[in-house]
Amino acid sequence: MKRKITLKQIARELEVSISTVSKALSGSKEISEDTTQKIQAFAKLYNYRPNNIALSLKNRKTKTIGILIPEIVHHFFSTVIFGIERVANKRGYNVIVGLSNESFTKEIINMEMLANGSIDGFILSISKETLLKQDYHHFHATINQGMPIVMFDRVVSEVDCDKVIVDDFNGAVKAVNMLINKGCENIALLTTMDYVSVGRLRTQGYLEALERNNIEPNSDLILKINDSLNSADHLEFLENEINKFFELNPNIDGVFAVNELYAITAMKVAKKIGLKIPEDIQVIGFTDGVLSKHATPTLTTVSQHGQRIGEQAANLLIDRLESEDVEPDSFIVNSNPKSDFIKLVIETEIIERESTK
Amino acid sequence: MKRKITLKQIARELEVSISTVSKALSGSKEISEDTTQKIQAFAKLYNYRPNNIALSLKNRKTKTIGILIPEIVHHFFSTVIFGIERVANKRGYNVIVGLSNESFTKEIINMEMLANGSIDGFILSISKETLLKQDYHHFHATINQGMPIVMFDRVVSEVDCDKVIVDDFNGAVKAVNMLINKGCENIALLTTMDYVSVGRLRTQGYLEALERNNIEPNSDLILKINDSLNSADHLEFLENEINKFFELNPNIDGVFAVNELYAITAMKVAKKIGLKIPEDIQVIGFTDGVLSKHATPTLTTVSQHGQRIGEQAANLLIDRLESEDVEPDSFIVNSNPKSDFIKLVIETEIIERESTK
Repeated sequence: MKRKITLKQIARELEVSISTVSKALSGSKEISEDTTQKIQAFAKLYNYRPNNIALSLKNRKTKTIGILIPEIVHHFFSTVIFGIERVANKRGYNVIVGLSNESFTKEIINMEMLANGSIDGFILSISKETLLKQDYHHFHATINQGMPIVMFDRVVSEVDCDKVIVDDFNGAVKAVNMLINKGCENIALLTTMDYVSVGRLRTQGYLEALERNNIEPNSDLILKINDSLNSADHLEFLENEINKFFELNPNIDGVFAVNELYAITAMKVAKKIGLKIPEDIQVIGFTDGVLSKHATPTLTTVSQHGQRIGEQAANLLIDRLESEDVEPDSFIVNSNPKSDFIKLVIETEIIERESTK
Repeated sequence: MKRKITLKQIARELEVSISTVSKALSGSKEISEDTTQKIQAFAKLYNYRPNNIALSLKNRKTKTIGILIPEIVHHFFSTVIFGIERVANKRGYNVIVGLSNESFTKEIINMEMLANGSIDGFILSISKETLLKQDYHHFHATINQGMPIVMFDRVVSEVDCDKVIVDDFNGAVKAVNMLINKGCENIALLTTMDYVSVGRLRTQGYLEALERNNIEPNSDLILKINDSLNSADHLEFLENEINKFFELNPNIDGVFAVNELYAITAMKVAKKIGLKIPEDIQVIGFTDGVLSKHATPTLTTVSQHGQRIGEQAANLLIDRLESEDVEPDSFIVNSNPKSDFIKLVIETEIIERESTK
């Protein structure tokens, strides 16, 4: 069906006053011939008839979602984007991706660029530097200007918006519980020195699981790894660190690692020093990436369901964008009370493979 | 601010396909004169793109590079983006990423969206569907409108622009030569049924290396795998295919696989049927992804230097963008003769690890 248009919309589209449009359509001599022709052509094209139903707002939206992530070479973020795309395509939206590279300034630049007429709303995960600075003015400004944001994974309570998070804490509790149930008595934690909340939550989950099972935490069994390097050297450094750690603590019979790389490297080191997996030592990682599936033995891991996170985030954003359409006079999303925002917690799932009994 | 109209909106309003709009605007002879006129009139009314590009080149550089890739969950493309980012940031540019999802229509929609005032130029790799259709009008149109494109990896001779490609052919020759030099006599090829040129070139390289060493190619030793599936089932299917292949050809003592997954799976199957790597069978893959480094044994592979490809592509594009600045009156880049465009061939390198002697 051909859409109908109003005087007001023609005026807005052509950047002239409503009375100019009205006069041009009635052939008034007050309006220049050039402008009259332009307005009449436009009106004809849209089958303009007085008092017709307004052209839907939807029609003038970009139908594009802006995604802003901290890193591109990262399986988790890739799978989230994959999930966003699936839902976006199904619901008639396109996506465009900006990268903050963990930088506060780049996050602001990217948001400004994308928000400048290219997109209808954001799905984003906050950069490390922004989390360190605790400066969230750019998110507030974007929301105040009427552009909705959905945050995922790295979120903060200071910004009122829809959020989709991974249940990192309970994921870690489940993993450590499983190791205990499968007979492990001395469970090591391989974690980061990171200030990003996910690492902290996974560490807390480890401690919680021990406590629930009346096991005294032993600080000797917690290895905090400096992950500021990311290169071939880093792999060697990581292997050496874990090797020293295993030698100092020969009683370790279970390992919970807060990411896939640490878990894979722990298995490699264990095999090198003659330990059998899972007979002598059992290992559980976090994040179900490509390494977990293809390792020897394959790795039991806590899956974060990146794709599902992306799908839910996209649905939340599009629902919000399209609920605006119901009230054509309202352009501001966050006129909603704070309580209106949704926080979805995506449950983790343990994928059992060969690295546990 | 004047709203920008998109191809999608023009298509919807005029009830034609997106590619019809795209072709009509680029003056393609495939579209009837009547339709072309209608579409061009509509586009003109809305000050559609060609003018926007000229404006953006003249008055305000966005200092942003648009990247368009076929897939996001793909290590090679991630590393290329990483390389583009590195150079872009160093030279004061930002990047923005669009995804074609291997679809012709999505490629057009994304190019149009990004070109519409958001970016100064493109770095892209062509979608599979576009390669199948051999329809490159949208690239021609973009270039003709004064926006430079640098293509990488999946490139076509039909489009005149700067290109950065991997030396797939010689990479494969080198890999198979190495297997021959290390004593392999019956070298299998694991390849795809793909029409994407990189798979074809790697297969040709395999045959060339055999010929140079006076080895008669044996079609029994070439396994073409249908890679249309991509799921957990696919992994099982792949294992079964390679298992049958190894059982039918017990004389195989070397494997060259055109990608990392095939190589890793071949090692897995070989180990399962009791073969020792590299003593009984040596394996070389293509693409130095995360799996190669962490496999047991670690995989010898042909590295494509994704990061270097990205860095070179970014330098080519920015050089071209900034050379325009010297002549402020010139808006059209490809007024340069054809011979002006650069085709950089990035040499591959074999990374020797434990899967070869």
